[in-house]
Amino acid sequence: MKIAPTSEKVDSAALGSEMHALIAELYPICRSITGNGLRETLKRLQQFVPLTMHEVPSGTRVFDWTVPPEWNIRDAYVKNSRGGRIIDFQRSNLHVVNYSVPVRQKMRLAELTTHLFTLPDHPDWIPYRTSYYKRNWGFCLTHKQLLKLPEDEYEVCIDSSLENGHLTYGEVYLPGETPDEILLSAHACHPSLANDNLSGVAVACFLARHISELPHRYSYRFLFIPGTIGAITWLALNEPTVPRIKHGLVLAGVGDAGPLSYKKSRQGDTEIDRVAAHVLRRLEPQSQILDFSPYGYDERQYCSPGFDLAVGRLSRTPHGTFPEYHTSADNLSFVSPQALHGSFTACVSILSTLEKNRTYRNTNPKCEPQLGERGLYRMMGGSAESSANEMAMLWVLNQSDGRHSLLDIAERAQLDFDSIYRAAQLLNEHGLLKEGTDRSVPGLSEERG
Amino acid sequence: MKIAPTSEKVDSAALGSEMHALIAELYPICRSITGNGLRETLKRLQQFVPLTMHEVPSGTRVFDWTVPPEWNIRDAYVKNSRGGRIIDFQRSNLHVVNYSVPVRQKMRLAELTTHLFTLPDHPDWIPYRTSYYKRNWGFCLTHKQLLKLPEDEYEVCIDSSLENGHLTYGEVYLPGETPDEILLSAHACHPSLANDNLSGVAVACFLARHISELPHRYSYRFLFIPGTIGAITWLALNEPTVPRIKHGLVLAGVGDAGPLSYKKSRQGDTEIDRVAAHVLRRLEPQSQILDFSPYGYDERQYCSPGFDLAVGRLSRTPHGTFPEYHTSADNLSFVSPQALHGSFTACVSILSTLEKNRTYRNTNPKCEPQLGERGLYRMMGGSAESSANEMAMLWVLNQSDGRHSLLDIAERAQLDFDSIYRAAQLLNEHGLLKEGTDRSVPGLSEERG
Amino acid sequence: MKIAPTSEKVDSAALGSEMHALIAELYPICRSITGNGLRETLKRLQQFVPLTMHEVPSGTRVFDWTVPPEWNIRDAYVKNSRGGRIIDFQRSNLHVVNYSVPVRQKMRLAELTTHLFTLPDHPDWIPYRTSYYKRNWGFCLTHKQLLKLPEDEYEVCIDSSLENGHLTYGEVYLPGETPDEILLSAHACHPSLANDNLSGVAVACFLARHISELPHRYSYRFLFIPGTIGAITWLALNEPTVPRIKHGLVLAGVGDAGPLSYKKSRQGDTEIDRVAAHVLRRLEPQSQILDFSPYGYDERQYCSPGFDLAVGRLSRTPHGTFPEYHTSADNLSFVSPQALHGSFTACVSILSTLEKNRTYRNTNPKCEPQLGERGLYRMMGGSAESSANEMAMLWVLNQSDGRHSLLDIAERAQLDFDSIYRAAQLLNEHGLLKEGTDRSVPGLSEERG
Repeated sequence: MKIAPTSEKVDSAALGSEMHALIAELYPICRSITGNGLRETLKRLQQFVPLTMHEVPSGTRVFDWTVPPEWNIRDAYVKNSRGGRIIDFQRSNLHVVNYSVPVRQKMRLAELTTHLFTLPDHPDWIPYRTSYYKRNWGFCLTHKQLLKLPEDEYEVCIDSSLENGHLTYGEVYLPGETPDEILLSAHACHPSLANDNLSGVAVACFLARHISELPHRYSYRFLFIPGTIGAITWLALNEPTVPRIKHGLVLAGVGDAGPLSYKKSRQGDTEIDRVAAHVLRRLEPQSQILDFSPYGYDERQYCSPGFDLAVGRLSRTPHGTFPEYHTSADNLSFVSPQALHGSFTACVSILSTLEKNRTYRNTNPKCEPQLGERGLYRMMGGSAESSANEMAMLWVLNQSDGRHSLLDIAERAQLDFDSIYRAAQLLNEHGLLKEGTDRSVPGLSEERG
Repeated sequence: MKIAPTSEKVDSAALGSEMHALIAELYPICRSITGNGLRETLKRLQQFVPLTMHEVPSGTRVFDWTVPPEWNIRDAYVKNSRGGRIIDFQRSNLHVVNYSVPVRQKMRLAELTTHLFTLPDHPDWIPYRTSYYKRNWGFCLTHKQLLKLPEDEYEVCIDSSLENGHLTYGEVYLPGETPDEILLSAHACHPSLANDNLSGVAVACFLARHISELPHRYSYRFLFIPGTIGAITWLALNEPTVPRIKHGLVLAGVGDAGPLSYKKSRQGDTEIDRVAAHVLRRLEPQSQILDFSPYGYDERQYCSPGFDLAVGRLSRTPHGTFPEYHTSADNLSFVSPQALHGSFTACVSILSTLEKNRTYRNTNPKCEPQLGERGLYRMMGGSAESSANEMAMLWVLNQSDGRHSLLDIAERAQLDFDSIYRAAQLLNEHGLLKEGTDRSVPGLSEERG
Repeated sequence: MKIAPTSEKVDSAALGSEMHALIAELYPICRSITGNGLRETLKRLQQFVPLTMHEVPSGTRVFDWTVPPEWNIRDAYVKNSRGGRIIDFQRSNLHVVNYSVPVRQKMRLAELTTHLFTLPDHPDWIPYRTSYYKRNWGFCLTHKQLLKLPEDEYEVCIDSSLENGHLTYGEVYLPGETPDEILLSAHACHPSLANDNLSGVAVACFLARHISELPHRYSYRFLFIPGTIGAITWLALNEPTVPRIKHGLVLAGVGDAGPLSYKKSRQGDTEIDRVAAHVLRRLEPQSQILDFSPYGYDERQYCSPGFDLAVGRLSRTPHGTFPEYHTSADNLSFVSPQALHGSFTACVSILSTLEKNRTYRNTNPKCEPQLGERGLYRMMGGSAESSANEMAMLWVLNQSDGRHSLLDIAERAQLDFDSIYRAAQLLNEHGLLKEGTDRSVPGLSEERG
């Protein structure tokens, strides 16, 4: 019923390497928000988890949006007049502006450069550019290469197609004891970028495998979707399911060397917001809790005002704040097995705290129960020490009036959730607690601040 | 419909000078809480604004108070035995204790000094003293002069009258789109004191003129009244109008060199309290927001518990905290065109923010609308920058659930109100917002902290 | 009706000495949670206050607990083989583990040491140990003495009895104008320990005498009880009385040299919590306000979730944080007349503030009343000073809308409670206030933050 702490179940070094290997396997594939690259990526995840692939036809109306035509690309290059491929999609799929329309043309340098994108501040890196909703084409290259391009007649070829097809997404549903769900969502649409977001895909995938092997109270839903349009599509086609989502986490950029950061939900004080803050503070002192903002990843959709879900985001260095973001420098060496494993552990701790967080009533609420008689308390009085376990028990007994969850108690007591949880288990075994929120407690309606 | 930013409408140097010139014109008049000095002052304001003069008879009961007899003064002096006017009302009206009863007497120095007031700490300044509600008389002079007064027989003359008459006040009412009012109140009862409060009178007068020239949503009511008894009189005689006052500002001491200060209303978190804090923080980094206290100017009456209006006070250096306060040193050189203009600008910003602050509902609350399609969003994805305008739009869309005003959104987003306002205008033009508070939003009654 | 400030009624040096003398008188008695030592202690308090002694039979069920057998002890010693009393109960009752079962045995050193308790870190002190709920026996001694014990055959004697009898507690009830009660509770079960808790017993005793001599609004209940089991017993046997307890204070460890500390009730923001913080801040700048925790003295029972009373605790250095705690070093020189008197004064201030704290309505809520006419305000206007008394009056008038107590007003005004109280008295005498909470004030249900 509980997600066991990782340490007991998983060899951590091995797990980090396994996730990194998955990223390496997926890295070369040219993904986009639709098309075969995404399809192939999801297919490979099926070797780890029981992932269902969904295909939504182009043209499907999803709220204010329309599922776009499916994009596929076979080849692309720019050749100089001597026939040399000076920009070559085969070497890096970042060279082509993602969703470029097909093109086959000859042109002089002046015209060509209007379709070229570089990063003058990072002259060795190839930028990542997209043009999903405006028909356009282009090539990305290093600034160094751009500066060296001679006047010439160039042959431009993008062998792509933009046709009616499907938007593909993957879903892993793990039913638990209750239909209440925890959503984990990772965007899987970026081509050769490791941290953004093969890291999120890998951690979500191994998390799904981990949870599927253990009993769990909540039902879990993992989404591997194209960013923005994928979240919108899922929400539009699954509205009746949405109210079941009690907590959620977007996983994005969880493989770099930065400290963990949790971005709060729009509501800002939901259970997962508080759990994540509690867990991260203890796991990594330098971790950060960020306020919600409407810019970011798919939390933008989950936290739109019409849904307003309790969905936060776990990242390491937040997107857009590291120079490698959306460039060829976000490569396999930018993500590490250690960082991936640390993110995995943080997820497990957050989920396991959600699993274990309950509200109890002290069955003996008038005065303290006699703990010593039950072997729960030191018998020789007068000593100055009171063990941490005894303090945790006293806090749980004192606060368990049906109005304070174990997390509330841990926060007030300034103790680890797990020590409060263990105390509650012990008291529960001795019949001193009874699960259940009590809204009829006299005085409940009084404001006590 | 909006009060335009000053910069567009007014030549700021000219406006500051115009206000200073008005103060200079009014400065010599001997005002009091009743009488011809006040009447003449209000008459001169009529050259700028459509001011209505009200006359309330002496003896009128106004709540716990009674409108006092009307006081007028023609001349006053102390002559020495050689007939020289050693204290002369004609040189400064501060020389006479305001509301002195008539007196014509000869007396020795010892008796005279019991009626003399000086400032030993500022031996060159004449104090300002009043005795409205206790029949008394006296003279104010510099401490230097007092020390030099020889033993002599003095002739004392105060040619004043205290008779049944009227309390006079001025009112400018500018109807707007709604009967909801914004009140601006300036006390106009002090004689030759420039900052306290000809500065407030001048700023209020030019503000009334400015607003009268522009469309505006709110109705505006400007009061030029004697301090305390004037506010009490207006409230007592206009009780049915009081509930229309949605926001208000007392203007007092707004011409000196100190930074702007806003004193909150008794409620402390009304819309105008929050607007003023938002505006002042941006306008003058060294500006101050002060908590309410029941001491001060006419906010004492507007914020009495039986009214508890959302009325704050705009000042520069708060009254009683600068040595020139209530002395002859509060003269024309103590106030500057720059300071007056700065206060005027702050008022315009506060009022214009109140005018523009609305609450909207996102018409497309489920997921984000497709901004790019509407030309509201950059079309080329993948770039690391997100413009401030786009952020403002995302904030407005995310927070517009009928429960957050544009001010709420600006505060949460930590963006300027005006950038949030412009974003809302743009979204509104594209049909993405609909004005209106929605109290039926599911979950509204839930406390989310 | 008010508890007068100590200074007026009591010679403070004398009172401190009187309390210290009472502690000295009670110090040698061997108290425990039951038995003759406790009985004799309570009997001696009857010389000061009309204390009722209650006897609750052993075996009485009190919530989850059972009143234990009564323990009495006549003598105890360890003799060496030459017949010398090397550990002697007659020299200090701390030498015997409190509640030791009777024993009379000969044994070698090795066996004996399993029953000996010392403090290696404080080799000159005797520890205080108890074994109330586990049948056991033992001796406490200095670590120095333990190290010098030679191999020998020792004769061990504890001439105690554990038999059906009674748990004794003392109660002083002082009826006031209303049946609403203030509870003061001191544990009286520790043997020769001065600060813990003869200090609390002495302060409570003299407080009861003080209050009995003055008119008072609240009814007062003083409990002199054995720790834990005594509070549980009283609560179990007096459940119908519990709802009358509006405020309460546990007095424990109030005689040492440390600054005053107040530990908040479980609710954390009750009237007594706020009063104590207000009083202590002014009385001793270095005083401390501590958050509630479920560890401590009898506030554990009063603040158990089934009662959740507004009971805080007044102490000096908190128990367990000074090395002398529960050792022979907590002796008569560890507590001082000055400290006892300071604690007494703090109690009087807290109780007197509770007595005086009322909620009023301004009878003239629309604008200010004319204070000058009533001689309540300086008549000569224009002076820069406003006296503290006038400010206090203005605050009381402004805030008295039936929703703010005098304590609320003092806190908002950042003025002493007593100056606010005096202002309220004056206004009340002039008919400007009327007592009474007004829940029908329009706008009361609006949240104003």
